[in-house]
Amino acid sequence: MQLAKVVGTVVATQKSERVDGLKMMILRPMGPDGALSSSYLVAFDAVGAGEGEVVIYATGSSARQTEATQNRPADAVIMAIVDTIELDGALTYQKADDA
Amino acid sequence: MQLAKVVGTVVATQKSERVDGLKMMILRPMGPDGALSSSYLVAFDAVGAGEGEVVIYATGSSARQTEATQNRPADAVIMAIVDTIELDGALTYQKADDA
Amino acid sequence: MQLAKVVGTVVATQKSERVDGLKMMILRPMGPDGALSSSYLVAFDAVGAGEGEVVIYATGSSARQTEATQNRPADAVIMAIVDTIELDGALTYQKADDA
Amino acid sequence: MQLAKVVGTVVATQKSERVDGLKMMILRPMGPDGALSSSYLVAFDAVGAGEGEVVIYATGSSARQTEATQNRPADAVIMAIVDTIELDGALTYQKADDA
Amino acid sequence: MQLAKVVGTVVATQKSERVDGLKMMILRPMGPDGALSSSYLVAFDAVGAGEGEVVIYATGSSARQTEATQNRPADAVIMAIVDTIELDGALTYQKADDA
Repeated sequence: MQLAKVVGTVVATQKSERVDGLKMMILRPMGPDGALSSSYLVAFDAVGAGEGEVVIYATGSSARQTEATQNRPADAVIMAIVDTIELDGALTYQKADDA
Repeated sequence: MQLAKVVGTVVATQKSERVDGLKMMILRPMGPDGALSSSYLVAFDAVGAGEGEVVIYATGSSARQTEATQNRPADAVIMAIVDTIELDGALTYQKADDA
Repeated sequence: MQLAKVVGTVVATQKSERVDGLKMMILRPMGPDGALSSSYLVAFDAVGAGEGEVVIYATGSSARQTEATQNRPADAVIMAIVDTIELDGALTYQKADDA
Repeated sequence: MQLAKVVGTVVATQKSERVDGLKMMILRPMGPDGALSSSYLVAFDAVGAGEGEVVIYATGSSARQTEATQNRPADAVIMAIVDTIELDGALTYQKADDA
Repeated sequence: MQLAKVVGTVVATQKSERVDGLKMMILRPMGPDGALSSSYLVAFDAVGAGEGEVVIYATGSSARQTEATQNRPADAVIMAIVDTIELDGALTYQKADDA
């Protein structure tokens, strides 16, 4: 899994019927030290994440292992909203500080 | 999933019988800010996408999770045509402007 | 999927019994504009491709979705021989020109 | 699989119900010569690994092939704690020296 | 699949019970021209490969498609020992020359 920040959304009406009802978020991968990647990806949301939140996403077939995404063409899913990140013994992120 | 622009097509008559009837499109991955990648991939089309359109594609085993692609050697599928992209609170793409 | 040129072969007699009878080809990934990658991969052949031909290959679990490769440790398979490539409205490859 | 050093933890209370009870560790991939990568990933722990330990992790669908992770949205799992690494005939890592 | 040279081994006693009895080898990916990659990976051995040998490995779920690795958290497996490599019409590797 990877850490990421939710930075946007994508809307599509013409799509595979199997993705109806799923929200698509734009993620920017993030290191545990808070450094943001220059790349982006689109992920389905299985936990009610909002823009600006730090999340964990899973990719590949594992992205279909949530109630929301099974049997869907989902190769990336947000499966947790991060409370705290601890790196090398120091707290590098705490949700209350940012949200 | 990733955003991409449809930039071409590939035609093949000598192929695995399991891909008969599927259209193969050339995609160029795109960032949510509209920046096009220098790489390309080939994807099956599950939604009737046309050249020049901005789409979302899924890869890996998830690419077989549409009606069109199940049980086929498909590792990439177009599963949605994008209407709007919103990044960092700003609208960065709207289909009507481009199509 | 990706485009590639068949540039060689690998022979192995000491191998998993599950790959008996499959031909292993060396592929060099290729862009739709004909640019060859500096990397290589080994793929099983499901369509009778020959050296010098331009093909399409699939990777991951999807590489096991041909008659030739099911239930085999195949993470890459040639599943089509390319006739034509059209990019940005121009024909960039035609089989008869090269074969 | 890849070698990695356990360098931190992530805590999340709002998450897919399928990951309840699993500990999420931050890994930094490592070469067999001890060189640490500049990238990080988040993995579930199937073997009771602690911070500072050198481990082996598996990714993709294979990450769901432990008792702890089956049917969960796990795309990376720690599946072994390394005792020794031998590279080009020389011992490059021994657990007792570090733990 | 990819070509690689076997360059080392990893030993672990504390591990998922599902990998008991499998040997873990360190591989260095190799081009068909003999050029060695600067990266490494850990793979299970399904064919009795030894250090210094040139092998072919498969990754992802396909790595579980050998008798030795099914239902195990294996994302990379050595599935063949290379006899010969032919690239662009020239023999670039022959086992007898090296072993």
